[in-house]
Amino acid sequence: MAIDTSLHADAAAASTAPQEIVIPTGSVGLVAPELIRFDEPLKLSSGQTLPQYELAVETYGELNAERSNAVLICHALNASHHVAGMAADDPRDIGWWDNMVGPGKAVDTDRYFVIGVNNIGSCFGSTGPASLNPATGQPWGAAFPVLTVEDWVRAQARLADYFGIECFAAVMGGSLGGMQALSWSITCPERVRHCIIIASTPRLSAQNIGFNEVARRSIISDPGFHGGNYYGHGEVPAHGLSVARMIGHITYLSDEDMAERFGRQQRAPGEGGEFHYGYDVEFEVESYLRYQGEKFSRYFDANTYLLITRALDYFDPSRSHGGDLARALEPAKADFLLVSFTTDWRFPPARSREIVSSLLKNKCAVTYAEIDAPHGHDAFLLGDTRYHAVVQGYFDRMAAGLGLPDRQRTAGVLA
Amino acid sequence: MAIDTSLHADAAAASTAPQEIVIPTGSVGLVAPELIRFDEPLKLSSGQTLPQYELAVETYGELNAERSNAVLICHALNASHHVAGMAADDPRDIGWWDNMVGPGKAVDTDRYFVIGVNNIGSCFGSTGPASLNPATGQPWGAAFPVLTVEDWVRAQARLADYFGIECFAAVMGGSLGGMQALSWSITCPERVRHCIIIASTPRLSAQNIGFNEVARRSIISDPGFHGGNYYGHGEVPAHGLSVARMIGHITYLSDEDMAERFGRQQRAPGEGGEFHYGYDVEFEVESYLRYQGEKFSRYFDANTYLLITRALDYFDPSRSHGGDLARALEPAKADFLLVSFTTDWRFPPARSREIVSSLLKNKCAVTYAEIDAPHGHDAFLLGDTRYHAVVQGYFDRMAAGLGLPDRQRTAGVLA
Repeated sequence: MAIDTSLHADAAAASTAPQEIVIPTGSVGLVAPELIRFDEPLKLSSGQTLPQYELAVETYGELNAERSNAVLICHALNASHHVAGMAADDPRDIGWWDNMVGPGKAVDTDRYFVIGVNNIGSCFGSTGPASLNPATGQPWGAAFPVLTVEDWVRAQARLADYFGIECFAAVMGGSLGGMQALSWSITCPERVRHCIIIASTPRLSAQNIGFNEVARRSIISDPGFHGGNYYGHGEVPAHGLSVARMIGHITYLSDEDMAERFGRQQRAPGEGGEFHYGYDVEFEVESYLRYQGEKFSRYFDANTYLLITRALDYFDPSRSHGGDLARALEPAKADFLLVSFTTDWRFPPARSREIVSSLLKNKCAVTYAEIDAPHGHDAFLLGDTRYHAVVQGYFDRMAAGLGLPDRQRTAGVLA
Repeated sequence: MAIDTSLHADAAAASTAPQEIVIPTGSVGLVAPELIRFDEPLKLSSGQTLPQYELAVETYGELNAERSNAVLICHALNASHHVAGMAADDPRDIGWWDNMVGPGKAVDTDRYFVIGVNNIGSCFGSTGPASLNPATGQPWGAAFPVLTVEDWVRAQARLADYFGIECFAAVMGGSLGGMQALSWSITCPERVRHCIIIASTPRLSAQNIGFNEVARRSIISDPGFHGGNYYGHGEVPAHGLSVARMIGHITYLSDEDMAERFGRQQRAPGEGGEFHYGYDVEFEVESYLRYQGEKFSRYFDANTYLLITRALDYFDPSRSHGGDLARALEPAKADFLLVSFTTDWRFPPARSREIVSSLLKNKCAVTYAEIDAPHGHDAFLLGDTRYHAVVQGYFDRMAAGLGLPDRQRTAGVLA
C-alpha cells in the first residue's frame, strides 16, 4: 500500500483551490496510513508461522511524554485502520468510527493518542491473503494461514512495542473488535489499563457459527473462488461474496429497524401499485441488500472474509478452562466498560452480561451499560446520544485517573 | 408422477415376506398419491393464465355422506401432499405431519376426511416449473408463471369441487400453510367452517423478505441455474440451492435450540480437542447445515424455491385495504384457531397476535394458544404435547359442533 499524501499537501497549501476541503468540527482532519513492517516471524495459534508482516496503521492525537495516553482501537469484520478523519487520498472516505474519535469527541484526540490498526489477514493494507508470499513470490491465496483473535493481539502487541507503549490507557473495540480487547485483557494484562468492549460476546453461538458457515459456503462454492487462488485468474468470487455480505447485513440490523427503514415498501411499483410478479427487485429491502452485497464484493477480499469469520468462530477464551469464563478472565487487571444494545440479536445483551458476571465474580471493576437502541448490532457504529455519553463519561473519568489534562473542547455528546 | 401402488399391494398380500411392513398405531398406513387433472384454465393474480394443471393429492379417512367432515391441509415451503402415513413406494417416507394426522390423533382420521394437496408450482407431482409447457413441449423452467397464495387457494377450491365438498370442516396449515388457511377464510368464506393457522403471519417482514431474497440470489447466481432453464443442461444449481436451504434452516430453528443441539461442539477434533484451523467442517453445526443443504439440493427444484419464496413475499391480505388487516378479514365467517411458539423468530407470536386482534375486532370466534416451546419455527412440525392437546381439543369440539361421531380410539396426546 503506497501512502499517498499528495492530496493532504495540496489541501493544506491551496485552500482557495476549486476542490476546497472543509474539515468539520471534531474531525481529526486528513489522515494517511503508515505501513509498519515486522520482520520477526509471528508464531500463530495454528502452529504455523507468518515469516514477516506489515500492519497498516493510522494515529490521531499525540502520544504524551509518559506514553500513558494511548488508546488502541480494534476493528470488526469489514473495517480497517481508518478509524477517524478523512482519507488523504479521498476525503469523502470517512473513518468508520469518526463519530466516536476526534478532538472533543467521546474518545478525545486532544488528550488521547489513538491508534487504528488493520489486522493481518485483512485486505486494507496489512499483510493478508492477497499479499505476496515471500516463499513463492505469488499471492498467498489459500495458503495464507488461518488466524485467531489471539494472533491479532500478538501482532498488535508488537505494534505497541514499536510505539514504545508499555501500557495502553485503553484497548477498545466493538463486535469482533471487542473480542480483541477482551483477549488483550487476558493475554497482556499488564499492558491494558482499561478494556472497552462494545456489542460483543465471549464466544459465538451455534447460530452465529451457522450464519458464518453459510457465508463461507456461498464464497467457496462460487466457481470464481478457484480454491482460494483466484488472484491469478482475473476474476473474484463476487457472487458468493455478495450473498455472504447480504446474509451478514441482515444479522447486523434488527427486525424493528428493517421494518422501520424498509417495511414492505415496493421499489418501483407498477401502475396502481401493482407487483411485477417476477424475481427482479420488487421490495426496497431487496434493492438495499443487493446494493450492499454488490458494493462489498467490489472492495472486499473473499479470502479475508473466510479468515475473519473463522477467527470469530474460534474465539472462546473459556475453552481452555473447561468453559469457565471467570477462570479464563482471572489474569485480567484492567477496569472494564461494556456496552450492549437491546435489539442486537447477533450478540445480544445476555452475551455482554455473561462477561460482566464473570468479571464481577473475579472482583474486577466493571461499568456496564445496556442501551435501549433500535438499530441492532450496527448500533455500535452509530451515534446514539446515550451510548456516546456513556463512552465519553468513561473516557473523561479515565483521563482524571491517568492524570491527563482536562477536556479542552466539546465536540462530543456532553457539549 | 406415476402412481406406483405395487408396493402397497405387495405389502397387503405378503405380510410374511422378508420386508414385512409394520403399520404403527395411529398411522393411516400405506398411502399413494392421486393425480387430478384440471383442464379449465386458471387465471392467476399476475394476470397470466395457467392453461391446465394437475394436483397431486393424498386423502385419509372417509368423506361422510353429508360431506361435512373434510379437512384440507395446506403445506409450507418444502412439504407436499404427503401429510400422513407411509408412502406406498417407500414406506420409510413418513408424511410431514404424521404426528398430527391419523386414526385417534389430534386430527382424527376416524372421524375426519383429510386432504393433503401439493400446490401448483411445487415439485412433488403437481404441475410446476419442471412440468412440460403444453405450448412448447419443453419444461416450463423460467417461463412458469409466478404464483400467489391466492392462486393456490383458487386451485384448491377446484379440488374441493372435484370432491363435492361445499364447505370444509376445517382448512388448516402451518407457516405458509397458515397463510393459505387465512386466505381461504377471506376469499371463500362460505366454504370454511373452521380456520386453523399455526406459526404463521399476516405478511412477511422486511427481514423475512431479506432472507428470501438472499436465498434467491444464491440460486440465481449459481452458474448451474442457466436463467431458470437448467432442465435441458443436465445440471442443477445445487450449490446455490444448498446455501439457500442452509439460510432457511437457521431461521427455522431458535438460537436456544441450536445452542442445545449443537452449541460449540466440534465435529472431529484433533488430538487433545485441537482445532484443525481450516475451512472444512470444524463444528457440529456446520456439518448439520451442510448435510441439510446438500440433501435438500438433491430433491428440491430450484425454480420451485424461487416461486414459493416469492409467494411468501407477496402475501398480504391487508394490502388492498390500506394495510388494515381487520378490514381485510371482514368477509371471514369461520371460527379460528391460532397457535404460535414463543421461540419462533421467523414468525413470532406477535404476528399471530396481530391476526387474533384483527379477528376480535371483527367479533369472530377465536381460540389462541401461545406455546412456550424451545424449537423455534420448526415447532409447528413437532409433537409438543401441549400444542397437540390444543389442536386435539379444538378438533374434538369441532366434531361435536358438526355432529360427527365420538372419538373411537385415542392415539393422540389426550390418550
